[in-house]
Amino acid sequence: MRPQSLADLDPDLVRKTLLDAADAAASHTMPRFRTALAVDNKWAEGFDPVTEADRQAETVVRELIADRFPDHGIIGEEWDEKATQGRFQWIIDPIDGTRAYISGVPVWGTLIGLMIDGRAVAGLMAQPFTGETYLAMPGDAQYQRQGQTQPLKTSKITELAQAKLTTTTPDLFRKNDTEAQWNALWPQVLQTRYGLDCYGYCLMAAGHIDLVVEAGLKDVDICPLIPLIENAGGIVTTWDGGRAEKGGNCVAAATPELLESTLKVLRDART
Amino acid sequence: MRPQSLADLDPDLVRKTLLDAADAAASHTMPRFRTALAVDNKWAEGFDPVTEADRQAETVVRELIADRFPDHGIIGEEWDEKATQGRFQWIIDPIDGTRAYISGVPVWGTLIGLMIDGRAVAGLMAQPFTGETYLAMPGDAQYQRQGQTQPLKTSKITELAQAKLTTTTPDLFRKNDTEAQWNALWPQVLQTRYGLDCYGYCLMAAGHIDLVVEAGLKDVDICPLIPLIENAGGIVTTWDGGRAEKGGNCVAAATPELLESTLKVLRDART
Repeated sequence: MRPQSLADLDPDLVRKTLLDAADAAASHTMPRFRTALAVDNKWAEGFDPVTEADRQAETVVRELIADRFPDHGIIGEEWDEKATQGRFQWIIDPIDGTRAYISGVPVWGTLIGLMIDGRAVAGLMAQPFTGETYLAMPGDAQYQRQGQTQPLKTSKITELAQAKLTTTTPDLFRKNDTEAQWNALWPQVLQTRYGLDCYGYCLMAAGHIDLVVEAGLKDVDICPLIPLIENAGGIVTTWDGGRAEKGGNCVAAATPELLESTLKVLRDART
Repeated sequence: MRPQSLADLDPDLVRKTLLDAADAAASHTMPRFRTALAVDNKWAEGFDPVTEADRQAETVVRELIADRFPDHGIIGEEWDEKATQGRFQWIIDPIDGTRAYISGVPVWGTLIGLMIDGRAVAGLMAQPFTGETYLAMPGDAQYQRQGQTQPLKTSKITELAQAKLTTTTPDLFRKNDTEAQWNALWPQVLQTRYGLDCYGYCLMAAGHIDLVVEAGLKDVDICPLIPLIENAGGIVTTWDGGRAEKGGNCVAAATPELLESTLKVLRDART
């Protein structure tokens, strides 16, 4: 499904804002990566680490966006939503994969997206340790590293039996009462890989992985990735086939056929 | 447990051989990483991809070692063992984590180790995409990246409830009839992370993760990592507390206390 245009926004300014905001975030995330971190507990029970890096990165990204687009809304993970009734909303997850981050694993990323009228139309994932940037604008998805740029293109895999599947952890399904669906799906694929957070969606956009299935996502976890997936030729929906901007249970697939087969397995396994 | 010395070998030549061999392997693994790969099926059933990169990398590492130490034995994953009755054996896994490799995930690594009298005494993990090298010699474990070198030091975590645990996939336990033990362990730790292959042991040596528990390892999967873990202050044993050089079910822990607690949980859960 082809995303909308950028309405009356300047595409160059949008692109530059995404890239500049990612750099600003990296100036707070990278110095603290693989160091002893002050880890807060966001939840009274369980363990959801939110670091200073997370909060400070979100602050600088918000400031940068608000400076260039003062009348746009901003949705973030750490701070309250900036109220807006307008068409334009930016959505930020300064460190998607905080658990990867505090474990030293470079599969976390800074996610920044732009929505127009509730539809994600541009977005970016930046992984500053590996120096990778995955960037999407309407009609264009690209990979940047070490000064090189390549187009992102999903694989042509259409059969579950040939698909490389990933999800961050089987705990997602335990926590979201969807274990039966997950257990119906994974034995049917070629291989299942865990532990990738946002990086999994980006590897799917790049054609290295064919299918991502997750449950219980927040809007900030998935929204900035939607333009990457769609403009690379893939599809992302909720498990009932709807738009994924609000998160929840989501599937991202390299091809429409693979999406349909996956949704069918998930639907048929519903208890 | 402090590893043995290098007997009468020249430490500088051993170190240089490890690093040169990793570079030689990278010249075959990196050009094929994230490209369309000819993937063979090693097993008639299931899916264990062995790429040309894997085979060619092992060949060049073998040639380099054989050239410098012609009377040493060499154990690899892809080719037959080079027969030897001597004290010295090199052990090679050119791409540990081939599934990560074919999925584009940079947590695979080239593993090269040196055993003397059956004990692992020196070893290396190299991840050429991120440019990281984890290198151990007797009494010394270090991290190298971008021209910088840092000592490797495990964390001081002694309690399961504070430990960050990793394993490559829960399938390891399904396949090795040890699900009961795994399911007794993971709910007791602070967080569980999947999908890291050799990279998990290295992050443990570097203090970012506290505990690695795996089942059904081959000798090449773990042997080159033992010197890294031990010289960084950690401990690695089989689940019954023995030496890990031959692989099998293994635990690597940041501290002796954490190892003991883990072994007890695994022992008590045995059915």
